[in-house]
Amino acid sequence: MKRAVVLLSGGLDSATCLAIALSQGFACYALSFAYGQRHSHELEAARRVADALGVVDHQVATIDLRAFGGSALTADIDVPKGDSADGIGDGIPVTYVPARNTIFLSFALGWAEVLAAYDLFIGVNALDYSGYPDCRPEFLAAFQRVADLGTKAGAEGQRFTIHAPLIDLSKAEIIRRGVALGVDYGMTHSCYDPDPRGRACGRCDSCLLRKRGFDQARLPDPTVYGATR
Amino acid sequence: MKRAVVLLSGGLDSATCLAIALSQGFACYALSFAYGQRHSHELEAARRVADALGVVDHQVATIDLRAFGGSALTADIDVPKGDSADGIGDGIPVTYVPARNTIFLSFALGWAEVLAAYDLFIGVNALDYSGYPDCRPEFLAAFQRVADLGTKAGAEGQRFTIHAPLIDLSKAEIIRRGVALGVDYGMTHSCYDPDPRGRACGRCDSCLLRKRGFDQARLPDPTVYGATR
Repeated sequence: MKRAVVLLSGGLDSATCLAIALSQGFACYALSFAYGQRHSHELEAARRVADALGVVDHQVATIDLRAFGGSALTADIDVPKGDSADGIGDGIPVTYVPARNTIFLSFALGWAEVLAAYDLFIGVNALDYSGYPDCRPEFLAAFQRVADLGTKAGAEGQRFTIHAPLIDLSKAEIIRRGVALGVDYGMTHSCYDPDPRGRACGRCDSCLLRKRGFDQARLPDPTVYGATR
Repeated sequence: MKRAVVLLSGGLDSATCLAIALSQGFACYALSFAYGQRHSHELEAARRVADALGVVDHQVATIDLRAFGGSALTADIDVPKGDSADGIGDGIPVTYVPARNTIFLSFALGWAEVLAAYDLFIGVNALDYSGYPDCRPEFLAAFQRVADLGTKAGAEGQRFTIHAPLIDLSKAEIIRRGVALGVDYGMTHSCYDPDPRGRACGRCDSCLLRKRGFDQARLPDPTVYGATR
């Protein structure tokens, strides 16, 4: 069985991405990051998803992006709230984490090389998150070149493939795909600003996109919204 | 003053690279990594060099590459020893750390973006370390493209420059250049396998290349060799 390293945040997209990698027959090694997130609910979701879907190994790499500052997800900047997903994705949001996907893919690449895995999966999406530069196909193509040129395996002739199976899908299409593959989205966590018990706020960009996705997919949203504090 | 992020390991090359960046008028932000090295002498050297040369800030990012295994510098594999630098650089050494420079540059990029710095300096060298794929100019060019495409700054039209001022220099040329800029190489640490007090072994690849560099530069080597254990 070919091995793949799959980036797994614990959110809806990466859980679907893992289910797709498994459905393609890869032996999957899931990689999550403790990167100074404001809360641990996302990582707990990643552990649940990795267990439920069945990976060979799940590593949580600790990295400290807080030392650099600069994002609502890791620093003391308010997460923006709204009532509708319309207009999300115009411009780059304050929740953008500098170079995040570059850093995450770099770690995935390091682990992949040790595992002799030449397939990396990342659940980025160019539609709903058009504001994030590191979710674009041209970025992924550039990173693939870095992987081929910057590794021992690449120097020896191996070619890496960065799989982004969600890149052109809408949130509704992602949800339909995941449900068809048996993903229980109740295990996943999307909210940028949950309450201490992990309940989703329902009003941050991530919650709004998730809600709209289930609406548009005409599938029931298992998420319990209504964070209280 | 334009800002630059400079990767600083505490070794001879990165100290020279920092001195060059400073000589070009950059306000320098030095970045080192605690990545599960076998010893802390390298990081102590990085702190000394950052203080002595005068940086605006020096951050040490903690990352854990040990979870992935796979290198003599981070795992339990013997560091190779020899009597001469001849033949070093034929093939990829066991001290190669998977995707290391990709990971280091990714962090530098994240910090650079927060600082609004668009110049990154890395002390890689294609001659003495020809065995490391991530020390080649084509790798750096590929990473520059990742920086331009994968960042908010790049999406807004900024262009990043990855400076590798040592890339074509021999070790002797690097040493001459650093001495001309006033670098005290007694502060730097190169040995892969020092004794507990930090004394260099004199027989690992890194020590052998350093010794030969001073010989060929016809400059005194301030290093105290002769690790005992």
